[in-house]
Amino acid sequence: MYQKRLKSLIQYLEHQHLDFAIVSSPKSVFYYTGFHSEPYERFMALVIDLRKGTNYLFVPALDLEEAETSAFIPRIVGISDELNPYEVLVETIGEGVRSIGLETKKISLYQQEQLKHCFSDFSYQNIGDFITKQRMKKTAEECSKVQRAVQVIEQVLREGIKSYKDGMTELELTAEFEYLMRKWGAEGPAFSTTVLSGEKSSLPHGSPGRKKINIGDFLLIDMGVIVDGYCSDITRTFVIGEETAEQRRIYEIVREATQAGVKAAKTGVRIGDIDRAACNVIKESGYGQYFNNRVGHGLGMEVHEEPSIHEKNNRTLESGFLFTIEPGIYIPGFGGVRIEENVYIGEDGNTKVLTAFPTELIRIG
Amino acid sequence: MYQKRLKSLIQYLEHQHLDFAIVSSPKSVFYYTGFHSEPYERFMALVIDLRKGTNYLFVPALDLEEAETSAFIPRIVGISDELNPYEVLVETIGEGVRSIGLETKKISLYQQEQLKHCFSDFSYQNIGDFITKQRMKKTAEECSKVQRAVQVIEQVLREGIKSYKDGMTELELTAEFEYLMRKWGAEGPAFSTTVLSGEKSSLPHGSPGRKKINIGDFLLIDMGVIVDGYCSDITRTFVIGEETAEQRRIYEIVREATQAGVKAAKTGVRIGDIDRAACNVIKESGYGQYFNNRVGHGLGMEVHEEPSIHEKNNRTLESGFLFTIEPGIYIPGFGGVRIEENVYIGEDGNTKVLTAFPTELIRIG
Repeated sequence: MYQKRLKSLIQYLEHQHLDFAIVSSPKSVFYYTGFHSEPYERFMALVIDLRKGTNYLFVPALDLEEAETSAFIPRIVGISDELNPYEVLVETIGEGVRSIGLETKKISLYQQEQLKHCFSDFSYQNIGDFITKQRMKKTAEECSKVQRAVQVIEQVLREGIKSYKDGMTELELTAEFEYLMRKWGAEGPAFSTTVLSGEKSSLPHGSPGRKKINIGDFLLIDMGVIVDGYCSDITRTFVIGEETAEQRRIYEIVREATQAGVKAAKTGVRIGDIDRAACNVIKESGYGQYFNNRVGHGLGMEVHEEPSIHEKNNRTLESGFLFTIEPGIYIPGFGGVRIEENVYIGEDGNTKVLTAFPTELIRIG
Repeated sequence: MYQKRLKSLIQYLEHQHLDFAIVSSPKSVFYYTGFHSEPYERFMALVIDLRKGTNYLFVPALDLEEAETSAFIPRIVGISDELNPYEVLVETIGEGVRSIGLETKKISLYQQEQLKHCFSDFSYQNIGDFITKQRMKKTAEECSKVQRAVQVIEQVLREGIKSYKDGMTELELTAEFEYLMRKWGAEGPAFSTTVLSGEKSSLPHGSPGRKKINIGDFLLIDMGVIVDGYCSDITRTFVIGEETAEQRRIYEIVREATQAGVKAAKTGVRIGDIDRAACNVIKESGYGQYFNNRVGHGLGMEVHEEPSIHEKNNRTLESGFLFTIEPGIYIPGFGGVRIEENVYIGEDGNTKVLTAFPTELIRIG
């Protein structure tokens, strides 16, 4: 699998007449080599030398043992902390590089300066779009990994919500969910677990706090897990006790918007039209001003990948795409509702909804 | 506090004769504005226009409400997903920018290309080193936030380790720790919680898995929490049941190395000498080949900050520095030991060890 992916990248690089390429985002390194690590500020990269037809994996020295166990690349170079990684790079691959392929969205300006220092006279070309496109087309096997991550998070949601007790805070409930994530074998949360109640549920990126979850509150839960390197990302909104008529109305509009988005997600459609389908439901019901972000995003090894499901995305939806659909209505000072599904376009072109947790309004407590 | 920090940055920028500066790393945005968010691939930046003497905070539209609540900056611009953020930037601040200050380690090559597109003819200068230096000098107030995060993680360690039961896996024990982190009010783990047992404890960056923790294993626990935006980072190594003579020997060497590092950490010393003091203990005992990474790193709003405590760092240790000391011995196929303390150099120049959890070898189970 790794071999096949790497071969396809190398063909592209050859076609671009590059001497040399550096794949430095940790997830892309994982995608091509099977070695998964977060090196923080240390240097880690898959380096492809097209002149010699050799590949190297550069890792921090402290990751060397693990890289040797899990990476598919035979040439692994460990870099000790006291060394300048760019000097190690030049020593390993030699000078005379004229053209380099880089992931321009992932490599920092500082790293480019360091490379300039190593290889005085070179041009660079962005290879990130190719990698993004390659990663965007998920195989059935990758989908089944996301599916597994979805199953775990839905089990966490189903069991965790039962632990809600009167007087509980957002943080306490978050603790229950994250405990269950680990218990059921997740590598960890896929992103910062979001448990927001009452007015706070109108903050699309708010953090759980010491606020008590009260009767009458909306309870918005947005969470995901990493399982086997792949992420899930689900949102459901509950109500504590009984909903008011306005809460019910808002909830049903969002539910309808999510369904409209899912229904619009078919191979061959313009991606922006998925966003439009969901947004139109909200706009037509008069709540358009309370939803101002994109309706979804790609999902895979990272929780935010391509494609971005927003109004102006003119790309056509293809088989292999895997993404979220998550419209919402967020009314400052009142509260918010979001319902999020994970969707895969199968290799046969059929749309598969990976999330199965009910979307009907559920009363808690 | 934010005003004072920002004023100091602006003085520096003026001194550098810059027209304009972009602070784009989320933690630095937090440091200067009080607004904390992880925008993922969306554009978020504190923008300082020195020509007009105005500052702007650009945030994704979905964070606007929260930014307005928490940011100290009065001019906040929300950017909807369908807009090009660089176009919004030019519309807001106008053209004619000749010199820009950027955090070159944080800004991507792609972002620089976008800026080139906006402001055709400009030079840039790295302002990241200034920001790093400013953030490196922690006030007593910042130290007390780290101290609080240390207290929480030590309570988590003390209580969590009691839940160890025969036959438990690394992941199950990780779940207990992370549950307690949330329960005691942490915003979350400061980094991926590391619980490694037996041979796996020799992997400095390994991940907890379904491996059972067995009698005779070393149990290495490296974890931290974020409390009020600041991180802690502690490692302790336990033994399950009774240790062998070799385990005892290795443990005591590492313990002595950590103590030597802490003892060497005094204002005015060369930072590399702290690394050397700890490493020498390991080398002299004959285990030098089993420790090949730096002995520590700065700690604050991020879990890895400056200063880096490695052999070749010639910087002098100053008051306000806050960092870890964490030597280890990692023997492939056998296991590893690491003992990590958090240290602050007070404004009075005195060294304060923030971690208080015992460093004696503790037997579990």
